[in-house]
This record gives sequence, C-alpha cells and structure tokens, in this order.
Amino acid sequence: MKNLHDLVIGPPLPTQRIAEERLGRVRALAALSPDALASIAYANQEIYLGLAAAGAAGLAYAWPIALAIAGLLGLVALSYTQVISAYPGGGGSYTVARENLGVNAGLIAAAALTTNYVLNVAVSVTAGVEAAASAFPALWPYRTTIALGLLAAITLANLRGLREAGAVMSGPVLAFIATYLILIAAGLIRAGVEGAAPRPVPPISAGLVAPALLLRTFAAGCTSLTGIESISNGVPVFKPPEIRHANQVMIAMAALMGILFLGTVGLTEALGVTAGPEETILSALARRVFGRGPGPEAAYLFVQGVTLLVLVVAANTSFVGFPRLASVVARDGYMPRQLTLLGDRLVFSNSILLLAGVAGALVAAFGGDTHALIPLFAVGAFLAFTLSQAGMVVHWWRAREGAWLPKAALNGVGLLATGAALLVIGYTKFLEGAWVVILLIPLLVVGFRRINGHYRATAAQLTLHNKARIPTVRPLDRPRVVLPISGVHRGVIAALRYARSISDHVTVVYVEIEPGRGEHVREEWKAWGLDEVASLVVVPSPYRSIIGPFLDFLDASDRAHNDGQLATVLLPEFIPARWWESLLHNQTAWLLKLALLYRRRRLGRTRAIIDVPYYLRK
Amino acid sequence: MKNLHDLVIGPPLPTQRIAEERLGRVRALAALSPDALASIAYANQEIYLGLAAAGAAGLAYAWPIALAIAGLLGLVALSYTQVISAYPGGGGSYTVARENLGVNAGLIAAAALTTNYVLNVAVSVTAGVEAAASAFPALWPYRTTIALGLLAAITLANLRGLREAGAVMSGPVLAFIATYLILIAAGLIRAGVEGAAPRPVPPISAGLVAPALLLRTFAAGCTSLTGIESISNGVPVFKPPEIRHANQVMIAMAALMGILFLGTVGLTEALGVTAGPEETILSALARRVFGRGPGPEAAYLFVQGVTLLVLVVAANTSFVGFPRLASVVARDGYMPRQLTLLGDRLVFSNSILLLAGVAGALVAAFGGDTHALIPLFAVGAFLAFTLSQAGMVVHWWRAREGAWLPKAALNGVGLLATGAALLVIGYTKFLEGAWVVILLIPLLVVGFRRINGHYRATAAQLTLHNKARIPTVRPLDRPRVVLPISGVHRGVIAALRYARSISDHVTVVYVEIEPGRGEHVREEWKAWGLDEVASLVVVPSPYRSIIGPFLDFLDASDRAHNDGQLATVLLPEFIPARWWESLLHNQTAWLLKLALLYRRRRLGRTRAIIDVPYYLRK
Repeated sequence: MKNLHDLVIGPPLPTQRIAEERLGRVRALAALSPDALASIAYANQEIYLGLAAAGAAGLAYAWPIALAIAGLLGLVALSYTQVISAYPGGGGSYTVARENLGVNAGLIAAAALTTNYVLNVAVSVTAGVEAAASAFPALWPYRTTIALGLLAAITLANLRGLREAGAVMSGPVLAFIATYLILIAAGLIRAGVEGAAPRPVPPISAGLVAPALLLRTFAAGCTSLTGIESISNGVPVFKPPEIRHANQVMIAMAALMGILFLGTVGLTEALGVTAGPEETILSALARRVFGRGPGPEAAYLFVQGVTLLVLVVAANTSFVGFPRLASVVARDGYMPRQLTLLGDRLVFSNSILLLAGVAGALVAAFGGDTHALIPLFAVGAFLAFTLSQAGMVVHWWRAREGAWLPKAALNGVGLLATGAALLVIGYTKFLEGAWVVILLIPLLVVGFRRINGHYRATAAQLTLHNKARIPTVRPLDRPRVVLPISGVHRGVIAALRYARSISDHVTVVYVEIEPGRGEHVREEWKAWGLDEVASLVVVPSPYRSIIGPFLDFLDASDRAHNDGQLATVLLPEFIPARWWESLLHNQTAWLLKLALLYRRRRLGRTRAIIDVPYYLRK
Repeated sequence: MKNLHDLVIGPPLPTQRIAEERLGRVRALAALSPDALASIAYANQEIYLGLAAAGAAGLAYAWPIALAIAGLLGLVALSYTQVISAYPGGGGSYTVARENLGVNAGLIAAAALTTNYVLNVAVSVTAGVEAAASAFPALWPYRTTIALGLLAAITLANLRGLREAGAVMSGPVLAFIATYLILIAAGLIRAGVEGAAPRPVPPISAGLVAPALLLRTFAAGCTSLTGIESISNGVPVFKPPEIRHANQVMIAMAALMGILFLGTVGLTEALGVTAGPEETILSALARRVFGRGPGPEAAYLFVQGVTLLVLVVAANTSFVGFPRLASVVARDGYMPRQLTLLGDRLVFSNSILLLAGVAGALVAAFGGDTHALIPLFAVGAFLAFTLSQAGMVVHWWRAREGAWLPKAALNGVGLLATGAALLVIGYTKFLEGAWVVILLIPLLVVGFRRINGHYRATAAQLTLHNKARIPTVRPLDRPRVVLPISGVHRGVIAALRYARSISDHVTVVYVEIEPGRGEHVREEWKAWGLDEVASLVVVPSPYRSIIGPFLDFLDASDRAHNDGQLATVLLPEFIPARWWESLLHNQTAWLLKLALLYRRRRLGRTRAIIDVPYYLRK
C-alpha cells in the first residue's frame, strides 16, 4: 500500500520545503493563466451560438461585442494590478472584500469564488472534450465519460504536488499561445489573399436584431474574463520579488488574452466561418484557415489537440486557486478545519478531492455539455470582481495617501463596469441557470456562518480560560466496569483480565435474544469457574434487540449504585485476520459504542468505553 | 425517530408471536403462488417474441410449444407434492439436495435459488410496469423509475411483516385469477361467434422454421414455471396440518397455471392477435377480446391494472422465500450470520434489504427491460428443479420402504425432463445472458465455502474447550496509560481524571505538526499546573501526519518499559451537540482507533483503547 501510494502520489515532503515550492514567471504564467487564456474556446462559442440565432445579420455584431468585452478585460486587468500591489499576501476578492467591506461581503466573495472554481473545472474539461470531438465526431456520444476521465487525471496530477503539476502544464500553455498566434497570422494572410468575405454591415434599424439578444450574447461572452483573478490570488506562489513578477505576468496575460480573443472573433467574421451542430466555431475556423489536404489536415488536428490540452490545463488553475482560498477561509473559521491541512505532498488534498468531486458531479449531471453549464459560470466570477473592486475603492479612500485618487478612480470605473456586467449577466441568464448560483451563494454564506458559530461555541465550551481557578485533576474513584458478552470464549477471558486490572467491581452481562440461551451461557460460565471472578447477569430481550435492553440495564445499575459515576463499559472485540471477514459478524460492539456516545448523552458526566481487542490469527 | 419507525415499519413484536404468524390456504396461495401465476405475463410475451421472428408460420407453433410447457409444468408440480410430503420443514431444493446429494450440491442449489429469487423480483416488477405502459404509452420512457418506485413500496410492505403484507397481497391475486378466467371465457365466446381466425397449419417442411428457433422459444417459455417451488419451500408458513394444506394449494396452483397459460396462448393464436413494439401480447389480446368502445376500454384497463398488481405481488414471493432460504443457509454457516436474525417485525430485515438492493441494481442496469432480463432467469430455476428431483430420487432409493418405486420413478421422470430443459435453456440462451448466471453460481458456491471456512476458523480460535485446564483469569498489572491530546482543554482534564483513576503511570503526548506549537502547549500545560499530574511529551512530526509518529512513540514506550504489557491508549473525544458538526472536526480519534485495532495487530497481546467522551452542550 505504501509503495503504491508513493508511486502514484509521490513520497511525502517535510514541512521545511514549503518555501521552496515557488514558481518563476513563465511557470507561474503556465500555472495561473490557462483558465483565462483558454476561455476563448467557450467564450467564442457562446458569442457564435448567441448571434447565430439571429442569422447572418446577427453574426455581424460579433466584432462590436468582442471589442466591448476586450475593453472590459483591459479595465479589469488594470484594476487587478492594483490589487496585487496592495495585497501581496494573496487571497484575492475574499481578502479585499473582507478587510474593506466587512465579514459578510468577504463571505459572499468566498462563496462566489467557490462556485466559480468548481464551474471552471466543469466547463474547461467539457469544452476540451468538445474540441476533440469536433475533430473526431465518433467521440461525441462519449463526451461525459471522457471528461470524467480527464478530470480524474488532473486530480491525480494535483495530488502529486504543485511544482510537478506546473512542469507538466507549462508545455501545453506555451504551445497553445504559439499555435493560436500562428493560426491568427495564417488567417490574416488568407483573408488578405482571398479578400475578406462580403462583410454584412450591421443594419441600422435596431428592430432587426433585438437588443436583448445582444445583451445575452455579451453576457455569455463575458465568460472569457473568468480566471483573470487567479494571478492576484496566487501572488505568494511567485518567486520574489512577488509583486513585480505578478504584475508583469498579469499584463502579459491580459495582452495575450486580448490578441487571441479579438483575433479569433475577427477572423471568424472576416472569413465568414460557420459551424455545424457537432463542431465548435474554433474548430470550423481552423479548418477554414488551413484549407483541405493532408498537410492542412495535420495542422488542424494539431490545433484541436493543443486546444484540448490547454483546456485541461485551464481546469487545473482551479486546483491551484481553490485550495488556497479554502485554506484562507478555513483559517478564519468559516470552512471546515480539515481544509487548512497540508496533505502529504504539501498540497491541500482535502480541497482537491472536494473540488474534483463536485465538478465531476456537475459534468455528469449536465451530460458533459458546455453550453448548458455556461449560464451558471459568469455570475460568480463577476460577483467576485465587483466585490473586489468595491473593496479596493474603500481601501484607497481609507488610506488616502500618495496618489490615491487616480488609483481609487481606476478601481471605481472597474466597479461600475463589472457591476453593470454582473447585472446584465444575472438578468439575461437567470432562467437559463444563473438562478442556481444566485440561490447557492446566500446558502453557502449561511453555511459558512453556521460553521463559524459552531467553532466559536466549541472553543467557548472547551477553554479553561474562563475558569476562575486552576482545574481540579483529583482522580475519580476506581470505575465500576460492565462487560457485555455474546458467549463464553477466549476474547471474553482477555477482556475479563483487563477489567480486573482496573476495577474490583466487574459485572458481566449477557443479553438473551433466543429464549433458553441464557441458561446455557450461565452453565458454561460456572463450568469454567468464572463465577468466582465476576458475576454474570442475564438480561432477557423479548424484542430481539441487544442494544436497548443493555442500555436500560446500564442505567438501572448506575441508579442502584448511586455513587456519582457512570459505569465504564468494556467491550471485548475480536478482530478478524482479513477486513472483509468483519462483514460476516454482527457489528454489535460498534453499534453499542455509537449508541453510548451519541444516543444517550450524559452532559457533564463521563461514561468511558473500553475496547479490548482479541486478534484472530487466520 | 422512534415514532416515525413505528408508523412506517410498525411497532416491534415479541418473539412468542412467531408461532401465530401462520397463513391459511387462501392466504398462503396469495402469498406463495403469484410468482408462478403471474409468470404467464412474461412467458407469453417471450413465446410471442421468439416466434414472431419467423413470421406467421412461426406463430403457428405457439400452441404445440405451450402444450409441451404445460406438460412439463404438470410433471414438476407432481414431483413437488412428493417433496412437500417428504420435507415438511421447508428449505426446498437446498435442503433436499444437501441431505441427499451432499453439501456441494446443496450449495449449488442455494446459489441457483438465490439468483432466481433476485431475478424474479426484477422481472416481475419490470413486466408489471410494461403492462401499465402498454395501456399508457406515455409511461414507456419512465419504466425504470416506476419499477424502482414499486420495488421500494414492496420492500416497505415486507419490512412491516409477513402477515400484513399477505393481507395486502391476497386481493390482487384473487382478482387476477377471476379476471383472467373471465377474459378467457369472453375470448372463447368471441372466437366462437367470429369463428376462429384462419389458423395457419404448421408447415410440414422443417426448413421453414428452424428447430433452433423453436428450442429457444421453448426455453424462454419455460420461465412460466419459475416460482412453482415457492410452496414446497414455504411449508412451515401454512397453518397445521401443513403438509395436507400445502399439497392442496400446490395442485390448485398448478391447475390454475395450466388453464391461464394454455387459455391465453390458445386464444392469441385462435384470434390471430399480434402486438406492436411498445405493447405486450397479453395487452393486445385483451384489447382484441373486448373490442372497441367505452365499456370494453374500461374492461381492458381493468385487466392491465390487475396484471400490474399481480406482478407486483409476484415480486413479493421472493421477499417471502429468500429470507427463509437465507436463514436456513446462514444457520448452516454458509451465509453471513446476520441473515439469521429476526428483525423487529419478526421478518428477516437484512435479507429483505439485500434482496431489494440487488434486484433494484439489476432493474436499473437493464433499463427496466423484461426481455433483456429473461435469459438470466430460467437457468437458476431449472438448475434448482433438477437438483431437487435428483435429490428426491436418492431419497427414495435410500429409504426403500413402502411404495417407494413409483415415487422414485415419478421424480426420475421429473429429473430427466427438468434436466433436459435446463440443457436446452443453458445452450440456447447462453450468449444472450445465461452465461452471467452460469458464471455466477460457482462463484457464489466458492463464496459460501469461504464464509464457512472463516466461521470454522473463528470458532476454533475462540473456543475454550481445547484448553487443557481452566483458563487463568489472573488480573493483569495495572495498565500504563498514554493520552494523546490536541491542545489543553476541558476534554483533556476529564480524560486525565479518568486516566488517574485506573493508573499511576499516565503519559500525555502532543504530536507537533506546526513547528513551534509544541512549546506553546508545554507552557500552557505548566501554567495550569498539569505537569504535577502527568508528564507531557511533545513528538515532532515533520511530515504532518499525526497517527504514524504517535504509533511509533507507543512502540518505543512499550519497548522501553519492557513490562510485558502494551500501554492502554486513552482518547479524549468531544462529541458535538449535532451529528453534522462532527464533519467539522478532524476525525483523528477515530482514525487512530482504526489504526490501533487494524493496522498494528499484536497477536496474543492486548492493547486496550479507552474513549472518554466530553459532551458539548450546543
């Protein structure tokens, strides 16, 4: 088992190596940006699907919408460079909102980011599979299965640890950037040679294409901005100087996003590309740019392969970002404490498994269809953007030092832009699925608060600091021991010996389910001379339950002795040699323990439970 | 919780009432025969589907095949009356084969019957839903869901107890018998009025319809015999005199089966009925017999409703039969011991839940399609028939008293007939699914034997009877106690007090995951004056695991003391006020217990584990 674990997950690393697990700029770009970069795959697709509903006249709006989104992208990216400088500790929207707008705003941001991380995994993986299935339509019916397989592979890579995962990931990201830059260049050449397609002029009459359709398409296209916050959340991952490196990577990434997004949308329009129902628009664009023949066909397949890979890597950004968010929120006591734990490989194993599980469930529930998942996606991202921008405005206002005004103004403009986009998205996509997220976020916030309430209550009950004096550690009297048995056998002898070593008052109890068995057990007890060691009590059980009558006996015994303590229960347990053999025995000891611990609570009084195992050799 | 349990399952019954839970003849017929009676629903369907592949010429063979099956039915029924007389204790094929042919034959019969009980549930429920969906084609896509819902309802009825379930069930069975007798009568009248359909004469040239097709159809039609053994298995359910009552019910049931089966097959052929792809042949027959109009339509719907109900009740026969088989086999030590336990309501709750779970999985896996399940079905039934007949032949031969020869001859003929049918079924249906059961039965037998091996080995290791002298119950020395803590809090104080009450040698251990925390805990320990009560040891854990370093400490401590005992581990556990709050804490205590009990086995030595719970009030 240990060897298998080491082979698949890698050997554990000691705590001191955490500081070494930092990334250089190129690796950080590869680890944190693919989500943002790869979103052109589904954002393009959504713009195309949204406008194609209105025919050729609709498609003419692709370029203006793309320009609007690219403008928003630039604004958000600039705003986030200011977040990086102000909050080099990472934590992103949650930290910014919490510090400047209060705990509730922080929790809303945390909830929004959580939905967002999960959906990024689901959407990226399914979009990647759709890219592959565009090239090989035979794969189309198996999209869900393939997507779940990819998800499992990504999860494993992340359980092995951040740095190695980063190494695996940087190749595809750089190849993706290069490939799409070449694709765009080739497309521009083709457009120049062929002359642009007769580009339909957007009709002046707004009646032709409904504004609602344009807004909806804009909202869907905004998914291209998702992931842009990963860098500001991940500042501590950078090698020092963290802030400068993070800012450089932020700007490089935004520039690349703009080029890839505008380039592909523009070429799609210029070349008059359209796609069938089982093909993505990016796939159709690549086919169109490269043309026909064996060479072009190979180039096309390469583009699809790289797209698939980069989307897989994009899903990975959530596996870097979510565990960091969860550990920050859990340290503040709003998520389960287990999420703060470093796993064997210095990564947050619990969060990784949680993220993979929920994303996998979403992929399965939505049948691996990206288009169905998209309406759930953008809400969380833009809610987090908006809260972060609002927090930054307050941040600059509170400090009011140096050139604070232009900085506050920039974040203010960002606040207005992302807030407006959020309203558009929430409104136009509400019925298509945004309602799920809009409903889920307050539920998550309530959940966070309840978790925090529990931790506070627990700490208050467990602390010694509110005690006026030093606690008494006067030992209790020696315990009375009650020993339930299922028959007379060696395990009982071992338990009896232990019981006698800690107590002079041992009572053995047999619960009689089959009438007459009790007499038999009593005779055996005598025959072995055990009645000289401890007295045997037979408790009849007409309703064939063991636990109820035993608990009743215990209560009666405690009442009868009235010595201020609860009798200790000693359970003789025999442990089979192989785990599956446990299934062949009635798990009475285990059920009894559960009943003693949970069903009959005795506030302020201690009923100890002792397991005395007896090991079977075979 | 208790009230909910009582409302749904009913209050528990004391053991003394077992003897009262017996059934009169009509109720026993209702409880034990519906499987056999209702099988006309799917057997007819299989004959029709099998022959329709060969067109009208094929359908002409329905009547001869039905006659052959009815002959087999009579033979098997007569053979089973002899089983009832010879084995009034019930247990059926398993008991007969085990006593006369040896343990292995008995286990093969038990395995065959087990597959058979499970498949009867799956086939009956899906066939019932198909009857309903024939009347309301809108239900067709939801067959799986509806079937699972019905299965859940049947399971609940059985968990409430046999007699009440019997009362609920007898109505539909009697209504089914009456309705189909009326249907057959009405059909005969219609055939008389209209004159029989031009009945195609079976072509003399065998080349027209392949013998393989006829054999396959015969094999599929043999599913109408499944369930006939329920009565001989269930003799103890009858009110005394059990044997006479059971024999009477057996003969009545066989006669009814013959009439219903031959009547429906004959009418289908005489009236030239055919069915579409989303309708059963019995549904088409009922439509044809009653004709068109509001009155006939109501009659038709009534027939379909009764068919659905009786198939639901048929599934129920497995819930009567399987728990009885399982308890007999489990008492012999070949199935898990839990299956011998009577549940709260005097029924075998564990077996009922097991049966429902496996059948439900089958229904879901086969998408609620009866026709896909049928090839798995008949093999088990006919294997059990054959073994039972063979056992009876040996039984008469061994006794050789009275008129044993004719009895042996009857069972011998039964043996030949059922054995031949078994070969036909196994051969013709092998690829369609019979291989699953043919593979499963030996695996089950191996499983039964391994279970038995484990129970024998356990008993041999636990018994005191192979000890030469009376066991020593000399008490052990007072234990050393090791107390792992996660910090200094009230739960620790309670645990420390208990530890001091049973031992003078208490060591407190803190496993340090975060460098520096250990020093902090040590200072607190001193500040509260606890160092005067017990010494604190801080164990560093560079790999952030709590359990490994603690276990290593324990081993080192045991070696250092070298006093012939293993230190007792005392776990302070705080129990949250609500169950879900347990999820918010690291379940370290629980994992530690598992590791101590299972991972580090110390054969022949006792390491006791003590839980000292501390209850949170909120």
